[in-house]
Amino acid sequence: MTEKKTGNQMWGGRFAAGPSAIMEAINASIDVDRRLWREDIMGSRAHARMLAAQGIISSDDLAAIETGLEQVAAEIEEGSFPFSAALEDIHMNVEARLKEIIGEPAGRLHTARSRNDQVATDFRLWVRTACLRMDALLADLQKALLGQAERHAATVMPGFTHLQTAQPVTFGHHCMAYVEMFARDRQRFTDAVNRMNECPLGAAALAGTSFPIDRDATAAALAFDRPTANSLDTVSARDFAVEAVSAAAISAMHISRLAEEIVIWCTAQFNFIRLPDDYSTGSSIMPQKRNPDAAELCRAKVARIIGDLNGLMIMLKGLPLAYSKDMQEDKEQTFDAFDALELCLRAMAGMVSGMSVNEARMRAAAGHGFSTATDLADWLVRELNLPFRDAHHVTGALVAIAEEKGCDLAELSLDDMQSVHGEIAADVFSVLTVDHSVASRTSYGGTAPDNVRAQIARWKELMKGPAS
Amino acid sequence: MTEKKTGNQMWGGRFAAGPSAIMEAINASIDVDRRLWREDIMGSRAHARMLAAQGIISSDDLAAIETGLEQVAAEIEEGSFPFSAALEDIHMNVEARLKEIIGEPAGRLHTARSRNDQVATDFRLWVRTACLRMDALLADLQKALLGQAERHAATVMPGFTHLQTAQPVTFGHHCMAYVEMFARDRQRFTDAVNRMNECPLGAAALAGTSFPIDRDATAAALAFDRPTANSLDTVSARDFAVEAVSAAAISAMHISRLAEEIVIWCTAQFNFIRLPDDYSTGSSIMPQKRNPDAAELCRAKVARIIGDLNGLMIMLKGLPLAYSKDMQEDKEQTFDAFDALELCLRAMAGMVSGMSVNEARMRAAAGHGFSTATDLADWLVRELNLPFRDAHHVTGALVAIAEEKGCDLAELSLDDMQSVHGEIAADVFSVLTVDHSVASRTSYGGTAPDNVRAQIARWKELMKGPAS
Amino acid sequence: MTEKKTGNQMWGGRFAAGPSAIMEAINASIDVDRRLWREDIMGSRAHARMLAAQGIISSDDLAAIETGLEQVAAEIEEGSFPFSAALEDIHMNVEARLKEIIGEPAGRLHTARSRNDQVATDFRLWVRTACLRMDALLADLQKALLGQAERHAATVMPGFTHLQTAQPVTFGHHCMAYVEMFARDRQRFTDAVNRMNECPLGAAALAGTSFPIDRDATAAALAFDRPTANSLDTVSARDFAVEAVSAAAISAMHISRLAEEIVIWCTAQFNFIRLPDDYSTGSSIMPQKRNPDAAELCRAKVARIIGDLNGLMIMLKGLPLAYSKDMQEDKEQTFDAFDALELCLRAMAGMVSGMSVNEARMRAAAGHGFSTATDLADWLVRELNLPFRDAHHVTGALVAIAEEKGCDLAELSLDDMQSVHGEIAADVFSVLTVDHSVASRTSYGGTAPDNVRAQIARWKELMKGPAS
Amino acid sequence: MTEKKTGNQMWGGRFAAGPSAIMEAINASIDVDRRLWREDIMGSRAHARMLAAQGIISSDDLAAIETGLEQVAAEIEEGSFPFSAALEDIHMNVEARLKEIIGEPAGRLHTARSRNDQVATDFRLWVRTACLRMDALLADLQKALLGQAERHAATVMPGFTHLQTAQPVTFGHHCMAYVEMFARDRQRFTDAVNRMNECPLGAAALAGTSFPIDRDATAAALAFDRPTANSLDTVSARDFAVEAVSAAAISAMHISRLAEEIVIWCTAQFNFIRLPDDYSTGSSIMPQKRNPDAAELCRAKVARIIGDLNGLMIMLKGLPLAYSKDMQEDKEQTFDAFDALELCLRAMAGMVSGMSVNEARMRAAAGHGFSTATDLADWLVRELNLPFRDAHHVTGALVAIAEEKGCDLAELSLDDMQSVHGEIAADVFSVLTVDHSVASRTSYGGTAPDNVRAQIARWKELMKGPAS
Repeated sequence: MTEKKTGNQMWGGRFAAGPSAIMEAINASIDVDRRLWREDIMGSRAHARMLAAQGIISSDDLAAIETGLEQVAAEIEEGSFPFSAALEDIHMNVEARLKEIIGEPAGRLHTARSRNDQVATDFRLWVRTACLRMDALLADLQKALLGQAERHAATVMPGFTHLQTAQPVTFGHHCMAYVEMFARDRQRFTDAVNRMNECPLGAAALAGTSFPIDRDATAAALAFDRPTANSLDTVSARDFAVEAVSAAAISAMHISRLAEEIVIWCTAQFNFIRLPDDYSTGSSIMPQKRNPDAAELCRAKVARIIGDLNGLMIMLKGLPLAYSKDMQEDKEQTFDAFDALELCLRAMAGMVSGMSVNEARMRAAAGHGFSTATDLADWLVRELNLPFRDAHHVTGALVAIAEEKGCDLAELSLDDMQSVHGEIAADVFSVLTVDHSVASRTSYGGTAPDNVRAQIARWKELMKGPAS
Repeated sequence: MTEKKTGNQMWGGRFAAGPSAIMEAINASIDVDRRLWREDIMGSRAHARMLAAQGIISSDDLAAIETGLEQVAAEIEEGSFPFSAALEDIHMNVEARLKEIIGEPAGRLHTARSRNDQVATDFRLWVRTACLRMDALLADLQKALLGQAERHAATVMPGFTHLQTAQPVTFGHHCMAYVEMFARDRQRFTDAVNRMNECPLGAAALAGTSFPIDRDATAAALAFDRPTANSLDTVSARDFAVEAVSAAAISAMHISRLAEEIVIWCTAQFNFIRLPDDYSTGSSIMPQKRNPDAAELCRAKVARIIGDLNGLMIMLKGLPLAYSKDMQEDKEQTFDAFDALELCLRAMAGMVSGMSVNEARMRAAAGHGFSTATDLADWLVRELNLPFRDAHHVTGALVAIAEEKGCDLAELSLDDMQSVHGEIAADVFSVLTVDHSVASRTSYGGTAPDNVRAQIARWKELMKGPAS
Repeated sequence: MTEKKTGNQMWGGRFAAGPSAIMEAINASIDVDRRLWREDIMGSRAHARMLAAQGIISSDDLAAIETGLEQVAAEIEEGSFPFSAALEDIHMNVEARLKEIIGEPAGRLHTARSRNDQVATDFRLWVRTACLRMDALLADLQKALLGQAERHAATVMPGFTHLQTAQPVTFGHHCMAYVEMFARDRQRFTDAVNRMNECPLGAAALAGTSFPIDRDATAAALAFDRPTANSLDTVSARDFAVEAVSAAAISAMHISRLAEEIVIWCTAQFNFIRLPDDYSTGSSIMPQKRNPDAAELCRAKVARIIGDLNGLMIMLKGLPLAYSKDMQEDKEQTFDAFDALELCLRAMAGMVSGMSVNEARMRAAAGHGFSTATDLADWLVRELNLPFRDAHHVTGALVAIAEEKGCDLAELSLDDMQSVHGEIAADVFSVLTVDHSVASRTSYGGTAPDNVRAQIARWKELMKGPAS
Repeated sequence: MTEKKTGNQMWGGRFAAGPSAIMEAINASIDVDRRLWREDIMGSRAHARMLAAQGIISSDDLAAIETGLEQVAAEIEEGSFPFSAALEDIHMNVEARLKEIIGEPAGRLHTARSRNDQVATDFRLWVRTACLRMDALLADLQKALLGQAERHAATVMPGFTHLQTAQPVTFGHHCMAYVEMFARDRQRFTDAVNRMNECPLGAAALAGTSFPIDRDATAAALAFDRPTANSLDTVSARDFAVEAVSAAAISAMHISRLAEEIVIWCTAQFNFIRLPDDYSTGSSIMPQKRNPDAAELCRAKVARIIGDLNGLMIMLKGLPLAYSKDMQEDKEQTFDAFDALELCLRAMAGMVSGMSVNEARMRAAAGHGFSTATDLADWLVRELNLPFRDAHHVTGALVAIAEEKGCDLAELSLDDMQSVHGEIAADVFSVLTVDHSVASRTSYGGTAPDNVRAQIARWKELMKGPAS
């Protein structure tokens, strides 16, 4: 960071002593909020145009301001902008440079505005864009999952509960479960955007302003739905950021679950999938290793995002209205959460697209562990009219026999079967295959391959339009 | 808790040893999930009716089940139900008692159902109701705030930033800031309800079922918008609870801010308000104390709600699909969060309604601390056409003079004024009163009393209809 | 809870209105802090004896108080004590009942004391006991691990990184890793106890007292090391609880890691261990399931304990000295954290003791995945004097050949070996067995069975004495 | 960051495809862990010297390595080191550059070492240093508090509970409360250092090594107390960092309390203190503002530190042994927590040293609000032998009279007094002054000025020696 060694001249000359080095270190936010430069310039331009349209500043001043802001933007873009910690934040840095470039008119830009409504506007713009970006990245991840689901709509794998084999499902069905989760995640970002989409500009420091401003104009210029309705709330509220980071944390939680599955599926013991080389790493000491680092990092990132959410909420706890300096801490955690989620979404989409599925291993695993015991119990209910709980007991007894014999349910003899319940008939064996099991789950939302294909088709249709 | 000393007979007879005491202690959730009994019975009734309508169970069985469930409900309601930790949870307790009452048909109720979709349904129903209750309580709190705002639309108080006097605002405006916050909180609960409003019943253990069930029927019977679309997602997902608790945490955060203000306003030093006796407490050793305990507790509760949110998210981190026992921990934290928020909302509505405002103290405080300095700066911009930054410097110099003289800006002489800027004219003094300051903030969302009244009218209109 | 319908008479008669129902609901803590009854009576007895020894109360009063407290204790113990929410907390409940029993002398017990130092004392006593109990339970868990380590000091298993087979280790070595972790956890509890072991009694409300009390006497009576040194700190501080819960959270984190391993080891795919029946559960719909519920719950509990820690810290954030009502929220989260940890420790000790190890599966897994590649690289360094990085490259090339051939490193021919590096000699094969690999890791702390046995011996010796 | 556009050549040539850009972005940690460069070089030097001493590498190799490491250190120090994200982390960057500089011997440095024990060592060294730095900064803050306490040992201020005036205390006593808190914080850092002070080097990847290394030698060279005792634990454990960050969070919580008090004391309404200009800021729109920004930021920072702690713990939840890539996330949060705490400690020491105390305001506030009511109640107990509870009632009645009359307790007439209790005598008025009140609290730890001075003397003596 380039620091100018001058004090902050923005506060006027009332303070005898300049801020000390430690104060500058704790107080300056420029290293963090410089990321808001685009939003800051966009907001200033909208504000200046409105001021001119309302006759509060002259059209000459507006012209100077617009030219100056363009130059500032160009300097930042190309890396030549002289950022200064003594000027605290991006807003002061831009304004001070604007003054160097255009002189007096720069001082008129801040009419009917305060840093409080300015920063609220900049930050909202940033969070809004970030939410929309997450929505798009989630859609990419959904597409990657849809691709695998399509290939594997009928690929049988064990459905687990407690990581124990429960019933056979299809890998396509498993992928589609995540499509559903990420769809809700997208909705949460959309809801957050809709709720936050009110323009803070014009709330000024906290009370509004006596200048004849046009808040509808600045709101429209910045693509907000409307101006905010209470100036105190406007400069005090950060729930829009908390809500957005909460949506990010929930999404990251979903990703962590898929990541954990990938890590487990990649073990030698499961060996269900193989990650693409791009998303595997080696070891400095064990050359044979093929580590699912990207998946592990996707699993880990949820921790920091929850940490960020936590930090944001704690910071806001018990803050009196209106603006308190504590709120300067809002941005770093929000940026961090969205950066982390973006990395996860991109990496996860890459892993999902590129993973190859070991169908034989999945199928073999699906058939072990008495995974069709429920099918047997259901047969007893359907064919022998047993109450389900009795059917459950009969099945349990048969599993015990099979376990003792070291065989599968399908390998029991009819005699074995009838030793537990005399009415069991030979056609029971037809329901004990994994393919039959999977194909029979035709209830809406069930894992039958045709169901899965119908869901894929539904989602492909839904994804055609604008973001859900 | 009354515990039957028998083992859990639900798993069939396969295990040699019964669960030990420690296992029962860690595994049983009945002390927590018994709160779901209404939802459990409601869900079972809907499931049974659908089974009968589909011909999966007989109408006689249905009649027996309905009669039995009614008796179970009555027993729980009147406190005579024999809850048992050995039976683990509310679902097993109800089913076991149902069997005692009606015998065999009880065993048919669980056809095409699993505890996995059953608990997902019960819990969703509970969370949905809780969200709607929070919405109603938030509306009550908004009404209490609207009442104070109406009384005090023109009551001048200091607007603070950094807890330093910044500019005068009105107490009504301050109250309306919270009306805005709580409105967004209500929307978040509504969004959560809309998103979670899909029926899990029929997902069975994780794969759907081969019985010819009608998921639309059970969804409709339980007032869900539709059945869920993926059975694995259905039994694995708890984002609906996380989102609801996140909304609760954000709302509690807003409450903590108001609570902090109440604690500060009640100090001898501020003395802005007096809480009603009902919400004040005394001291065991200091008889003169009049403590804002309820406000402090409202401030504190956000901590546990954030803790609950955190716990929920952490629990779900990295869980493979579908159900894992970890998820049993979802309910206690959710219940705790909603209980705490409900207490806060009720107590805060009581405090807000009953607080009396010390208008004289507020007005006096609003006039101190050079609170109209911005008005002076704005006058310089408007009347002398100074750039805002120059006006800011001039004002700073005048504040410094007033500070040195120990007087207020309005008490400076015109000579003092002109010593800093020669063109300042006598009519500058007209903008230095708090009433003028407040009345001049007429920009949309500003604190001018007429603005505040317009916002009150808007909200009263909005609150007439169904929940926002 | 039995509630007396009278108002709280403790505050004197100054308030016009009694606390409303909602105030009572948010304000009363008796449902939570009744767990402190033993500590409360212990503290009162010590205080009364000191008051009498100092001549502040008479010996008759002391005798009455002691008799009365004994009766109170007996009533609580046997369940006949009339707890009342109107009396707010355990301290008021005990005192009010004492007054009913002994009359006037009860009113003298509170001389030179306040609820503030009283609750600080009670809570510290509780946390101190809880920490010591965790220490003992951790020692039990260490013993269970030592037992398995002893049986399996030479049982080969795969050592994992990234859940990929890295190098062979022994199961005993793996168990001993947790013995080390839990040893540090125990130290943390011990440190916390040592730091908190100062007696709050005598700090009174916040300023100390003018009565000639003997704080050393009460400290000694309650087995504290000394009285606290600053009365404001004494009634304001809760870092002792935060530190204790932080130690609990770290310990629970360690448990969650072992729990995750157990869940994975119990899968059909790994099949490394079998949990005892006592710690396994079945499924309501899938009779074959054998679920590691206790391990999953141990994994999940860390979430709520971190949530509790989080809640405690957030509650304390930004509280001005001295006591604020917010601090009433300290106990529930602390109790919850210790309850949860206690369950985990007991369940984990049971699982570890009772688990049976599938040695054949572990050994087979240890030999796959080129787990002795590092041994090969080390051989190249040692015998051929290759720089390690070059040896790593050579080994990588050999692994690639073996991977392509679908064989293990030990199954490569010498020709294969020499095709990559010409100087490789036949004795290289001696280092490629898992037994050789494990036996060779003789560096201090390494996995060689003799090392493991030495560590076991060291720990058995250490565990003989008082708690580490 | 300067990135070399080559792939990571460290893993050997087994992977067909190089890591993609997104993988590099999520996987590389060099932007974070470059801060470990000093520790990395220190650790490598110790390892190399040990290898040479044991005859594992030649003395020529050692000489080359030491020269090369010196050059690397110089390049990093002067900013010319070519950091590369393709080389992932600081360890690989240093090693790759070392190879460029010295060639083959660089490849021998990694003998009997792995990145796993290397990073564990580097990170422990960093955390150890950070803890010791916090201890020193806490001592500085204690000294600043001692300085104010000495000046204000007898300066009367209101002691608050619930932010309501409770009893008079002295400002010196209030400062000393924080000296106690920060002393415990220092002990926690010391305990953490003592517990973590074991050397990981030699644990290698996870199993130890077959090379004849001397772990005691490297431990001693790096000032560790001893080597770690279990290689799996060594590379898996991060509780040392969690404990250190937990200590940081508790300390930050204490700071947040003092910060909140400063913010409140600086209000116009309290006006108890004035912060030095260095730690105050102005406003962009309100030139009169004098904002306690540094205090607000100190209050806010606890939020991110709790967030960091939370993130660390969550990341470690449920990770199987030994190393998982998730653990790469440990450093950023730890660095952030210590950076934030360091800023707080420095800023707080500056604020405390430089604040000026408004003694007149404090004294006036201490005398209001019936702050000596407890003194009156104590008088009734002492002189009239009333039970405390009765005395409390009498005092409450007198407060009610005074409240009604709008006067203070000392301004009541003796008749007023006797109207409530006939035996009250005129000398009661002697205990109703704030000076008497404060002077009477002579119990150990009480606020009597002589007590406070004794505590100051004790602490000055304690602070003379090495860190507590």
